[in-house]
Amino acid sequence: MLSKNQIKLVRQLEQKKHRHLNHAFVAEGPKVVGDLLAVGYQPLHLFATTPWLMTTPVAVDCDVTAVSEEELQKLSFLQHPQQVLAVFRLPETAECPVPTNGLSLALDGVQDPGNLGTIIRIADWFGIDSIFCSTDTVDAWNPKVVQATMGSIARVNIYYTDLPQFIATSPLPVYGTLLDGKNIYEEELSADGIIVMGNEGNGISQKVRLLITNKLLIPAYHEGPESLNVAIATAITCSEFRRRG
Amino acid sequence: MLSKNQIKLVRQLEQKKHRHLNHAFVAEGPKVVGDLLAVGYQPLHLFATTPWLMTTPVAVDCDVTAVSEEELQKLSFLQHPQQVLAVFRLPETAECPVPTNGLSLALDGVQDPGNLGTIIRIADWFGIDSIFCSTDTVDAWNPKVVQATMGSIARVNIYYTDLPQFIATSPLPVYGTLLDGKNIYEEELSADGIIVMGNEGNGISQKVRLLITNKLLIPAYHEGPESLNVAIATAITCSEFRRRG
Repeated sequence: MLSKNQIKLVRQLEQKKHRHLNHAFVAEGPKVVGDLLAVGYQPLHLFATTPWLMTTPVAVDCDVTAVSEEELQKLSFLQHPQQVLAVFRLPETAECPVPTNGLSLALDGVQDPGNLGTIIRIADWFGIDSIFCSTDTVDAWNPKVVQATMGSIARVNIYYTDLPQFIATSPLPVYGTLLDGKNIYEEELSADGIIVMGNEGNGISQKVRLLITNKLLIPAYHEGPESLNVAIATAITCSEFRRRG
Repeated sequence: MLSKNQIKLVRQLEQKKHRHLNHAFVAEGPKVVGDLLAVGYQPLHLFATTPWLMTTPVAVDCDVTAVSEEELQKLSFLQHPQQVLAVFRLPETAECPVPTNGLSLALDGVQDPGNLGTIIRIADWFGIDSIFCSTDTVDAWNPKVVQATMGSIARVNIYYTDLPQFIATSPLPVYGTLLDGKNIYEEELSADGIIVMGNEGNGISQKVRLLITNKLLIPAYHEGPESLNVAIATAITCSEFRRRG
């Protein structure tokens, strides 16, 4: 039986302020919740339908509330709730490391939760285990971001930091796609580096742009289209790095 | 001055039934509306704020209604309306051609409007001028699709057809990404062909799968992630075809 208070507690986790006050975030559906449990994220509360509880072996030390489909609907941030909604403890904010090898992503003001979620999923696919975000990038624990990652948020480390300062301290080459960049298909790409992706409308900020050591361009095949979506550009760029490595 | 009837007429174009009954669809914002006007799409009605009307030279033979920001909000399908909303005539459904050269996309049951819009934008970027959709693919004139294309819908031809029958009549190689496919980075890819992308949850349907002549795989860098978003997979696949051509 679901209480009004429980509904209120879950629903307010839509807001960053409440996520940080409560050190908690929401994940939904067997895939995303399962992936977070699998890597050791600590659930604070599970709300699940009986069929899910009957078929899923969960040995977790947290409150579990069996809910009906109607009750789940009241908690859920999804149009079509998926059997289980979990409130997890926010991971401790580790000190932001400075990468000295391997490939990382840096996001400079990505605003759309769907884009950030998709970028986290792309990073996971291509084995990029850290994403460094400017402080004005959308919060990764936003329920829309968590869902769009399809579980990948469990396997990628996400840090928020003063991005220009962070990039300036890294010894690695800094790649970014810019209008005056060189054709990515023809450039040499190193196995170690930071790939910067910018804001949806304005691209990479002036401050960060000055720190880019290797400017790249994904060439359009013809005139007409002005730009690619930031997640699409991230995918093509990561694919180019990985196919050579 | 906006009438209640005008609001109703525009708002009901959210539904496919009404778009086809009225032979009309909605596009919003200077970029998308501008791109459609530029290639000759016929506007039936323009609703625009005075600043847009003052700065945009539009020589169009259609009704124009000057609206306030508040009035535009009542018409708009966007969270943040963008100066102009246009009702355009649906393009005549041309007979679906059978491509005999070049690269085309075929979509087998893509459901999410954002994904379809992004795929149209990718096709435009890579100079793929035709997309063939199964009849159960989401309607391209859905306002969410139109907006997600960022104007690219003006430059890409979209056909709805019996996809298995269509593919069976084409003489071109048929590419598709499947779990038992060959590493896309190592395969030979022709300059002519049809690239099939499947449904978000179920991938390519059984019927269409049987018609694929060249099975491809975008290799994951490590274990963990199960799949890529369909628009992301489309982008990586198109990028691979074009960088070699």
